[in-house]
Formats: sequence, C-alpha cells, structure tokens
Amino acid sequence: MSPLIALLSDFGTREAYVGVMKGVILALAPEARLVDLTHEIAPQAVSEAAYTLVSAVDYFPSQTIFCCVVDPGVGSERRALAVQLALTRSSAVVVCPDNGLLTPLLARVRQAVVLDNPRYHLVPVSATFHGRDIFAPAAAHLARGVPLGELGSPLSPEALVRLEWPEPQVQDDGFRAHVIHVDRFGNLITNLPGDWLSPPWERWEVRLAAQRIRGIRRTYAEVAPGEALAYVGSGGYLELAVRQGSARDAWGADVGTDLEVVKLEP
Amino acid sequence: MSPLIALLSDFGTREAYVGVMKGVILALAPEARLVDLTHEIAPQAVSEAAYTLVSAVDYFPSQTIFCCVVDPGVGSERRALAVQLALTRSSAVVVCPDNGLLTPLLARVRQAVVLDNPRYHLVPVSATFHGRDIFAPAAAHLARGVPLGELGSPLSPEALVRLEWPEPQVQDDGFRAHVIHVDRFGNLITNLPGDWLSPPWERWEVRLAAQRIRGIRRTYAEVAPGEALAYVGSGGYLELAVRQGSARDAWGADVGTDLEVVKLEP
Amino acid sequence: MSPLIALLSDFGTREAYVGVMKGVILALAPEARLVDLTHEIAPQAVSEAAYTLVSAVDYFPSQTIFCCVVDPGVGSERRALAVQLALTRSSAVVVCPDNGLLTPLLARVRQAVVLDNPRYHLVPVSATFHGRDIFAPAAAHLARGVPLGELGSPLSPEALVRLEWPEPQVQDDGFRAHVIHVDRFGNLITNLPGDWLSPPWERWEVRLAAQRIRGIRRTYAEVAPGEALAYVGSGGYLELAVRQGSARDAWGADVGTDLEVVKLEP
Repeated sequence: MSPLIALLSDFGTREAYVGVMKGVILALAPEARLVDLTHEIAPQAVSEAAYTLVSAVDYFPSQTIFCCVVDPGVGSERRALAVQLALTRSSAVVVCPDNGLLTPLLARVRQAVVLDNPRYHLVPVSATFHGRDIFAPAAAHLARGVPLGELGSPLSPEALVRLEWPEPQVQDDGFRAHVIHVDRFGNLITNLPGDWLSPPWERWEVRLAAQRIRGIRRTYAEVAPGEALAYVGSGGYLELAVRQGSARDAWGADVGTDLEVVKLEP
Repeated sequence: MSPLIALLSDFGTREAYVGVMKGVILALAPEARLVDLTHEIAPQAVSEAAYTLVSAVDYFPSQTIFCCVVDPGVGSERRALAVQLALTRSSAVVVCPDNGLLTPLLARVRQAVVLDNPRYHLVPVSATFHGRDIFAPAAAHLARGVPLGELGSPLSPEALVRLEWPEPQVQDDGFRAHVIHVDRFGNLITNLPGDWLSPPWERWEVRLAAQRIRGIRRTYAEVAPGEALAYVGSGGYLELAVRQGSARDAWGADVGTDLEVVKLEP
Repeated sequence: MSPLIALLSDFGTREAYVGVMKGVILALAPEARLVDLTHEIAPQAVSEAAYTLVSAVDYFPSQTIFCCVVDPGVGSERRALAVQLALTRSSAVVVCPDNGLLTPLLARVRQAVVLDNPRYHLVPVSATFHGRDIFAPAAAHLARGVPLGELGSPLSPEALVRLEWPEPQVQDDGFRAHVIHVDRFGNLITNLPGDWLSPPWERWEVRLAAQRIRGIRRTYAEVAPGEALAYVGSGGYLELAVRQGSARDAWGADVGTDLEVVKLEP
C-alpha cells in the first residue's frame, strides 16, 4: 500500500500554507496518501501539539509518517528532526522541529536524525516556512522510501528537547492533577491516567474550584442532561464534562486548572 | 475502484478525533478513499446532521459509505446502525447512531442492521467514542467488502428512531413553511420544495416577520446588491437571501423561523 | 499517476457544499486525487482568492487542476472558464468564474475556454451552485483526460476580467506599498517584492502609521518575543510581524493599510 502521511500544524485552514505543503509532498511523492490530524493547534502552542500527537499516534497504521509543524523557533538554531518511534502495537515516524513536540513520546524514540542533508530540502530554504521547505520534503522522501538515516546526521534520542510535562501527584487520600486539554465540547481532559483509579467507583470525588463531582461514571448517559460527571475518557485519562453542556463554560476551567481526585472514606 | 467513505460529524477539526477515525479506517482498509462531508455540525445537533446528509447523499458515487457520528447518546442503550439506502439514481450505505439522523431518508432504507457483532469493533470499546471504536471500524469493514448483514443483527427499517421533521403546510392562499438551515452566507434554506411553486413567478410573496419579498427569482443577479430575494436553491427548496449580504443578520431569522409563501391575486 | 485536483472556495466547511463538489468529481473521475487549498476565503472575496491561488500554484505538481469557486456573480452573465497556465517551473489548469480571480496570473494564461459545452455540465444546471454543476464537472472531465478545448468555446486570454491589482510605487527614498493579506498569525503580507530591496539591510525602515520598524531581518528569531520585525516572507514579499504576537492586533492594521519602506541615509 502507498505510504500514509498525517499532517499536524498550527497553520489553520484559511491560508494556503497547508495546501502548499501538500502540493510539495505530492510533487515529490505522488503515491503518498495524506490525512489531516488537525491544523487548528493554537498558534505556536507546542504542548497542545504534543498532546494531540500522542493521543492519536497509536491509532494509525504502522509506519505512518507524522509531519508536525508547530514551530515558533523557525529560522533560529532549533534543529529539525525525523525520528523513528516504537509504539505499543505499531510504529511510526515523526518529522518535526526539536522544540519539545515529542516530549510525551520520548521514551518511544528508537532513532533520531537532524534534517541537515540539503539534498532533501526544497531550495532555496526560506527562513520562515520550514513546513514547506524542510518538513514536507522530508516526509515525502520518507514516503518514497528514502531511509531515515539518509536525511541527516544521527542524534542521540537523549539530546531531544523536552518540555516540562505535568504529571499528577499522589496524595494521602488520592491525587492532585490538572486539566491538560479542553475539547470542542468543553470537556476537560486531565492528566490523571484512568488506571490509577479503582473501584468502588462511587467513593471517588473530584474537586475543581467549588465543584464537587461524586463518582466515576462509565458514560454521559448515566447523568441527566446539564449534570456534571467524571469518567475515564476514550484516551485513557480522567475527564470532566457536563452532559449536553460545556464544563469549561460552566466552571470557568481551562488548560492548567488544578483539581483533586479524592477517595472518600466509606 | 477502491471504496469511498464520506465522513460527517460534530467533532470539529481542532482535536484529533476525526484524524483518529481516519487512522482506524486506514489501518483496517488501506485502500479506502476518504472524503469529509463536514465535521462542523453544531455539537450534538442531530437534525442538522440529518439535513446535511440528505442534502449531499445523492451527489456521491453509488455505494459510497457515509460514516456519520453525531451521537449525544453515546454509551447509552441507543443502537448503532448500518443501513443500505436505495436512492433515486444511485445507492448508499450509512453507518450512524440510531437517533433520528436518518429521518429524512427513512423511506429509502432497504436493509438495516444493529452493529452488535463484536468481531467488527475496536476492542476495548470505550463508552464515549464509538466513532473510533464502532462506526469507523464498521465503515472500514464495509469498504473491505464485508457484507452489511455480517456486521450485526437485522433490524426492521420501521423500528429506526424518527425525529419530528417539520413539513410545510398548505393554506388557502399558499403555504406555511419554515427555515430549516442557515448557511455560511446567511442564506435561509426553507423546507418548502420548489416544485410546490408554479408560474407566474412574480405573483408569489414571501412573508417573514416584517419582511415582504415579492416574486420567485432564478438567481441572485436579478436583484441589486443588498436587496432581498426568494429563489429555489440548489437543493431544490425555497431559499431566502440578501444579495452579497446575510439574510440571517439582516432579519434576525434563524433555524425554526416561520414564514408564509402566498400567491397574490392578479 | 492519477490526476490531482486542488479545491479553493468561499464555501466554508460547515455545510456540505464542498463535500458535494467532491462527490460530483469522484462520481465522474474516480481516479482523481483531491487536495483542499482552502475553503475559508471570506464570502465573495475574489481578490483574496486570487492572492491565495497565486501564492500556492507554483508548489503543486505540473498539470494540477485548480477548481476555484468564489462566485458572487453566479447565475448572471459572467463566464465560467477553464485556462491553461504556463508557470516558471511547471504548468497548471484552472477552472473558475471569469471575475478577476486570475488577475495576478493573467500573464501566464496560454489558452482559455468558456465552459459552455453542456455535455460537460451536471444537468439540470442550477442558477446558484455552479461549483457543483459546472466547475466540479469541468475539473473532473479534465482529470479524465478530456482536452481543455472540448469543454467550450475558445476565448482570448486578453478578454479575461481583470481586477484592480495594487502595485507598489517607487518613491525618492524607497517605496510606497500596502498590506494585501493578513494571515492566521496576524502577520501582514505586503505587495512589495523582496527583491526590490537590497543590502545593507539595516538601513531600511518600514513606516506603518506610527510604527517604525528598523532593518530587514532574516527570521523571527532575530528579535525578542513581542518585538516587531520586517522580513521577506516565504512567498517572496515583504512581511511585517510581531514575534510570538499579532501585528494586526498590535497595530490595528488590515488588508489595504498603507506603508512606506524607506532606505535611510548612512
């Protein structure tokens, strides 16, 4: 089957930036199949891009090439990367700037190269649009079968830039966590892995500002429309929602909001 | 030719939800071609999804698989469906929740099954993202050639959930109708079929709140910029617009707004 | 390789208009590959569409078919076109209304036809959605291999509609230019070609309202976050930006805003 390239950026869909990247890819690798992951990452929000990538990467065919361009440092000395990932059930390749976008996947990196072989750049390389001139060509050449190691100099996976990545903390009576993403529906995705929680589910209480949400539910339908609930979301993390409403709007919560998840005494 | 899957959802394009569904599909059915119908259905607006699907379905190649996920009842007892449709000039398959999304197409349903064969689910099935775990895999397996009947238990087409679907009413001097959709341009699409109207076109008057729009036009260009007009739209229904402006903004109209369409005495 | 069709419109992605065009194309030309350039052109903004097309066309494979539908005159006597372009390194075909959308590409037009051969229309042709009924079918038939000349009557390239297209002016001490596009990041793209500028780069000053921006930089990283800079953008034109900020928001600038680019005495 022809290779699959998944695209992720903060370019939006109003300008032709993404279209131009696709044109560049298809001019070099006409056989490639293209899928958009999203182009609506908030401008230059590297950690949002990192979250989006890690939440999606496991669901794609093995050796999908992820071309990820959220690049506030374009034109500076920041490195451009291609990496090979070993995932739980599959594998993947990512091309992206070395700015922390790979943080939650760093333990999966098996090989990394700096995209410094000019033979695989679009010339002249602009100082402001490496998506077009470096990352799209790299993805296309990988799709054509060029080995990762050909694209540039090897780099130790330990040398990659790492963002501060919030981890939940264990407390006496439960956990301290926080919101790492708010989706389109206003659902709050936290950084607490669902498998840190255990039955009996009704003993858990989530405390977010003045809100108290009792019990871990299986699904929205267990509460009435307009009511709050906590549940383990499809990504495997604790989520908070208002059924047929927006938890963000209802509670004024956002990325970074702290919460406590407490197991009450029986 | 490889099978075509058209996707419709309220997931938006900011998160990776749609990308993940595409990854799941392409992992199972690498040959499938994917087209987006829209992912900007208002959150959980089943009737808007129903309108969008019925307005598009006739223009696709026969046996296109429509994967439609607007699913406020995810995780409840609502059924997941695959149905075979017989259309005027073609045919189509739809996978979707049984929540009324098929209402305007119910008369076209030739076969329906409940997606209850776990062999065709992504395991484990989450309680909140059946787009990924049930509907995308069903579309992919259909694209691979799995017969509809294999995906689960047969269901009588009469048993499908039906939304209240507004129909225009005949009155002494014309019709009572209402707005069922407002498009990006602020054009008001009504539920009055264009073929209920007849010449002489200049005798018709549309009354919407204080607005009086005289005559049924063929196209925008028949009125001056900024003027209102009524015409039979590309979907075959009466539409109201302000040329190079927004009828919604000008008149404060929205989905559900009533109107009268009256044939005046000569 | 199967033919590539790139789509550009002001239809947005909320309605199924674009999906319907894709359905029509794939019903006629199942082999075609589709790429979206953008569908977020402001409603009926022909000059924005013209800018977007010219900024992208050079990066696509030769003979890509651009199907561009920003069409305020739909249903009037405005002509529908297909044109063959000769580009610097490649070639392209464009189908679009004859409303000035090709203005910055007029010098590249090698052949033009009016899409008046009804054999290649979707019948009946509506008065309001030629994207579906004329432009998408034309693109599909071209993708199938129908020669351009078959689609309708020949037209002299000189006869095509031309928009007023702002050109920068040479002044005693530099240039007078203006903003022709504002991108998602709030960067201001001007109509001043980068190759009108020359070293020493630090002698240039850009004056936009009360702003004075000294020097032409190579990239964002040369200034501190929050600072303004001028640079030659990836499209080859002078651009103005605030690093990790929005020049539009900071300065109240927008499309049409005037600026002066002055070479200061040493």
